[in-house]
Amino acid sequence: MLNTSIIGASGYTGAELAAMVLKHPHLQLAGLYVSENSLDAGKAISELHGQLRGRVDLPLQPLTDTAAVVNTSDIVLLATAHEVSHELAPIFLEAGCQVFDLSGAFRVKSDDFYTQYYGFAHQYAQWLDEAVYGLAEWNSDAIRQAQFVAVPGCYPTAAQLALKPLLAAGLLDTQQWPVINAVSGVSGAGRKASMANSFCEVSLQAYGVFNHRHQPEISAHLGTDVIFTPHLGNFKRGILATITARLAAGVTPEAVSEAMSAAYHQPGEQAVRLLGHQAARLQDVVNTCFCDIGWQVQGQHVILTSAIDNLLKGASSQAMQCINIRNGFAPLTALVG
Amino acid sequence: MLNTSIIGASGYTGAELAAMVLKHPHLQLAGLYVSENSLDAGKAISELHGQLRGRVDLPLQPLTDTAAVVNTSDIVLLATAHEVSHELAPIFLEAGCQVFDLSGAFRVKSDDFYTQYYGFAHQYAQWLDEAVYGLAEWNSDAIRQAQFVAVPGCYPTAAQLALKPLLAAGLLDTQQWPVINAVSGVSGAGRKASMANSFCEVSLQAYGVFNHRHQPEISAHLGTDVIFTPHLGNFKRGILATITARLAAGVTPEAVSEAMSAAYHQPGEQAVRLLGHQAARLQDVVNTCFCDIGWQVQGQHVILTSAIDNLLKGASSQAMQCINIRNGFAPLTALVG
Amino acid sequence: MLNTSIIGASGYTGAELAAMVLKHPHLQLAGLYVSENSLDAGKAISELHGQLRGRVDLPLQPLTDTAAVVNTSDIVLLATAHEVSHELAPIFLEAGCQVFDLSGAFRVKSDDFYTQYYGFAHQYAQWLDEAVYGLAEWNSDAIRQAQFVAVPGCYPTAAQLALKPLLAAGLLDTQQWPVINAVSGVSGAGRKASMANSFCEVSLQAYGVFNHRHQPEISAHLGTDVIFTPHLGNFKRGILATITARLAAGVTPEAVSEAMSAAYHQPGEQAVRLLGHQAARLQDVVNTCFCDIGWQVQGQHVILTSAIDNLLKGASSQAMQCINIRNGFAPLTALVG
Amino acid sequence: MLNTSIIGASGYTGAELAAMVLKHPHLQLAGLYVSENSLDAGKAISELHGQLRGRVDLPLQPLTDTAAVVNTSDIVLLATAHEVSHELAPIFLEAGCQVFDLSGAFRVKSDDFYTQYYGFAHQYAQWLDEAVYGLAEWNSDAIRQAQFVAVPGCYPTAAQLALKPLLAAGLLDTQQWPVINAVSGVSGAGRKASMANSFCEVSLQAYGVFNHRHQPEISAHLGTDVIFTPHLGNFKRGILATITARLAAGVTPEAVSEAMSAAYHQPGEQAVRLLGHQAARLQDVVNTCFCDIGWQVQGQHVILTSAIDNLLKGASSQAMQCINIRNGFAPLTALVG
Repeated sequence: MLNTSIIGASGYTGAELAAMVLKHPHLQLAGLYVSENSLDAGKAISELHGQLRGRVDLPLQPLTDTAAVVNTSDIVLLATAHEVSHELAPIFLEAGCQVFDLSGAFRVKSDDFYTQYYGFAHQYAQWLDEAVYGLAEWNSDAIRQAQFVAVPGCYPTAAQLALKPLLAAGLLDTQQWPVINAVSGVSGAGRKASMANSFCEVSLQAYGVFNHRHQPEISAHLGTDVIFTPHLGNFKRGILATITARLAAGVTPEAVSEAMSAAYHQPGEQAVRLLGHQAARLQDVVNTCFCDIGWQVQGQHVILTSAIDNLLKGASSQAMQCINIRNGFAPLTALVG
Repeated sequence: MLNTSIIGASGYTGAELAAMVLKHPHLQLAGLYVSENSLDAGKAISELHGQLRGRVDLPLQPLTDTAAVVNTSDIVLLATAHEVSHELAPIFLEAGCQVFDLSGAFRVKSDDFYTQYYGFAHQYAQWLDEAVYGLAEWNSDAIRQAQFVAVPGCYPTAAQLALKPLLAAGLLDTQQWPVINAVSGVSGAGRKASMANSFCEVSLQAYGVFNHRHQPEISAHLGTDVIFTPHLGNFKRGILATITARLAAGVTPEAVSEAMSAAYHQPGEQAVRLLGHQAARLQDVVNTCFCDIGWQVQGQHVILTSAIDNLLKGASSQAMQCINIRNGFAPLTALVG
Repeated sequence: MLNTSIIGASGYTGAELAAMVLKHPHLQLAGLYVSENSLDAGKAISELHGQLRGRVDLPLQPLTDTAAVVNTSDIVLLATAHEVSHELAPIFLEAGCQVFDLSGAFRVKSDDFYTQYYGFAHQYAQWLDEAVYGLAEWNSDAIRQAQFVAVPGCYPTAAQLALKPLLAAGLLDTQQWPVINAVSGVSGAGRKASMANSFCEVSLQAYGVFNHRHQPEISAHLGTDVIFTPHLGNFKRGILATITARLAAGVTPEAVSEAMSAAYHQPGEQAVRLLGHQAARLQDVVNTCFCDIGWQVQGQHVILTSAIDNLLKGASSQAMQCINIRNGFAPLTALVG
Repeated sequence: MLNTSIIGASGYTGAELAAMVLKHPHLQLAGLYVSENSLDAGKAISELHGQLRGRVDLPLQPLTDTAAVVNTSDIVLLATAHEVSHELAPIFLEAGCQVFDLSGAFRVKSDDFYTQYYGFAHQYAQWLDEAVYGLAEWNSDAIRQAQFVAVPGCYPTAAQLALKPLLAAGLLDTQQWPVINAVSGVSGAGRKASMANSFCEVSLQAYGVFNHRHQPEISAHLGTDVIFTPHLGNFKRGILATITARLAAGVTPEAVSEAMSAAYHQPGEQAVRLLGHQAARLQDVVNTCFCDIGWQVQGQHVILTSAIDNLLKGASSQAMQCINIRNGFAPLTALVG
């Protein structure tokens, strides 16, 4: 049994992680932590997340002493703000823990990126270099060796899982940038009070046009420019991405289908479900670890639809896939069945 | 044309009032005000309430000088917090304005009530005494004479409009307290950021069990004890009240129907629509000024359903009915058609 | 391993049952059936219920031959229409299968009831007599011996779990009938096309006032008259019941709390979570097998709130609790963790 | 007063039209019609559309005799199925009525189009030629002269109002086809029972990928190829379109803004509200006649967001704009204020 601690356990992602660790046959919940001055410190996690009542009633402890976490943890999950992960990850890594960071602090191997998109100067070039990008279906070899995994963002997961097979097979004409439109549920904004998240203010709308931080994350890891437009939707969970791209000259519909099938040919090992020419539907993936992908080709264009649960495949269940891969467990342990 | 100012114009009710005054053939919008230190001061109301864009783009002015309001206003609408109305109403009244207060500060003629339910000691016994309760279909004679109207709360409007005809006709056995269950949309909590209003946290649930301030408001104005249980619903607007009451011995279904019809026999003048044995449906009243009421009798019990838009008949359109009645306009002016 | 077949597997409840059987360590999915002339016959269940894709892709077989089911099944789950269960249950029972019927066809031990509320004359008085009412937390002794379990309705489950502790302890004055108001998600109406279920027509409203078939089911099993008013809510899953009842003379708040705690003192064995004076919240129980119950006392009245997932504790997970109890498995096997 | 009849008055669009005609100072409601064998024939329109209760309680008459309509109507509004409009429009036109058709039967001047996308061979080439496309902000000169107006589709309205200013000013590089992603509320599918519209089945998803009939409508009237992907959203009303296009070489952000401002410089006469660099928000346009448009430029790309109420600017209020323009009334009569 590997002892597992969750830092930032008061949020929606933290609650999902706690439930997964509990279900996992090889993991044991070592501790749930919140920041030192959080108003939630001392409460049971189930006070905040009523669905956990009677299942996970552990207290949220204030993170006053990282050494105490180190002493009791083989694995540390960081479900913390970017700046907090940036400070904490090196501490737990240097103490020898496996660290799975769900924030954006170590996802892109470029210092400038953090100054421009996250508003802080990155201080840990070495750990940034060491971090393995945890897109589970594509980086499993590296993840298997990693002490430190930067779990991808929610939109980047949905977008890359759809586009990578076509790019890897050289089927796209990237002179025309793929256009990624995506709609996320409100939980993507985290558990907090704000006017933007206020029930009466939520309404389908684009945001972060041309300047969302997930655009460079997607571009960096795809190795091609993209146009990415996120939207807020009037639902709690899930992301649907609709992607329009131009095919390279002479690419047939069959070639597209073959590339998709080749990339995701291990259903029990991979959390991707291929829909063929059907369009992905949000409701089929919510509360599951799956990414559903459908596609259609017409003339020189392909349209892909890709759906995930933003809190699961877009965060916590992908982190768990990485833990499973790193530690030699079946990749979908605690995630299906 | 009567000059009309709205204090507290940044909220959902304020926005509705502004749109109504604009449509009104005999009212003119004199000014929109917010509290002196509001972050919204200086913004156009349509920046906050996008649906008003191009229709009402007036600025929200900080209320620094009540005299300026007095000088430009025949009518003052208070869509302010209870404590703020408590302070402001007397000022505008003494200056001779007609005041229509949408808060709870002057609805119940009992000092104790305010200490217990609103957390402040009432300072204006005389104005409290003077205030006419603006339940438009029932108090029109008094409203016609009033300088000062306390517009009823949202739940009390839905509940009283259904129960008053039966109580007035002596058809209920009030030894058994009527049971009022009601569900309100989230806009009832006002325009503000809070965890309780946060999109992902909203879920059907009861609140204020046995201690909501609208329970004594209902009881006081009905003249009988009631059990009132409010609920938060996962929708933006509207209230549905379901009321179970015991009939006095020998009361027939026909007597109930006759009492309802007698109370609301002037469709064009009253904002109540009788549904007979059909149940009221939220969607039929949202964005209208109407209260829909249905009822069924079985044995000694009657079940009534009563639906309103909480921001309209539960607040702003009822205020407008009162203005219309007070000033000799057709009661539903600016509200229908 | 007990072979388990699901009849009526195309509906929402059928899909939940299939997922549960799959997770169960001691059950094996023997077959999924739909009616002989169903348009869904031959499709994979995951074509209808996309969330099952890659997990349960078995075909929905037309039920042409009950003998084939009998030969392959130790347990038969009937998620069928009332009339269909009425015909099928006796066949499977006489063949020696354990039968768990989720319809209303065998819940109330009165012939008249079926004529009046279900529109057919009951033909199987003996099986009606034999059927054990599967309210798992209250009837486990009888369930343990039963060949035939009539799983309670969704509303009756929410209502009875809240009221039974108080009635059993003699704390209520039932001269005044308890008033049960409940709101159900749209999935309660089943998987079918109808104007009433059409997205644009759904809006909070009461229905079945004074004549819903769950009212006599509740009354019969509580042994007392009640007033029950169901409502349709604008959400997919879940039921919230708010219950107002009169306490017997002299009953204290403490006595109420003690009765609740005494009834549900085995958290790991029972699917009830007590909230004390907090109100139940729909979102905490959706996608769980739990019934959350809160209560408050004031003077002579108690208000209880009770929340369940209508498709789980209100149908499929309660059926699974009954299977577990009947077969000596831990009651919440395949339901939690 | 112009006598106005509505054919197909039982649907969501019909109900909106009826309410608008009622509010219009120069129109009079002559009759509400449904197809001869409709189950709704004989009912009051307010039985189907409860929000109209007490405002429009006229009966839905079976359309048995077109001559009777002709005799009582100056204006005929067709809110009918495409095939029905195709048959009816010529009849009313030949009788001399003004006809405003909200179906797709006369929008595109190509016979083939109807065979391919609507499944019927067009029989009325002359009337197809005569029909004026009712995109009110762009075709007012032609509308002013027209006897017959084909009111644009909902998606085409949102898309064209955003793209036309840039195309008209020659600012786009149409070698790269503009990518239009749009999400519509469920009312876009009409008032009917179907599994796809069933509350529990609605979930954000793309549909009609590469083959929705609104794609050729958009292309034909823009004069350029586009990629159009419609989506179903989990809300009742509204369309949000997000459009990504490539600018011609050297086009500046200022040039884009100027083109938008030049196209929509008459706020009181046009139902377009320009948001500048803000993104359009569904909630601001629902229940209004407006199209909100925002835009952003980066490098060689522009992203536009365009929001309308699909039942109003996407259907009925645009029809009313056309009536107003045709008959010399202020264009937004009965639509604002």
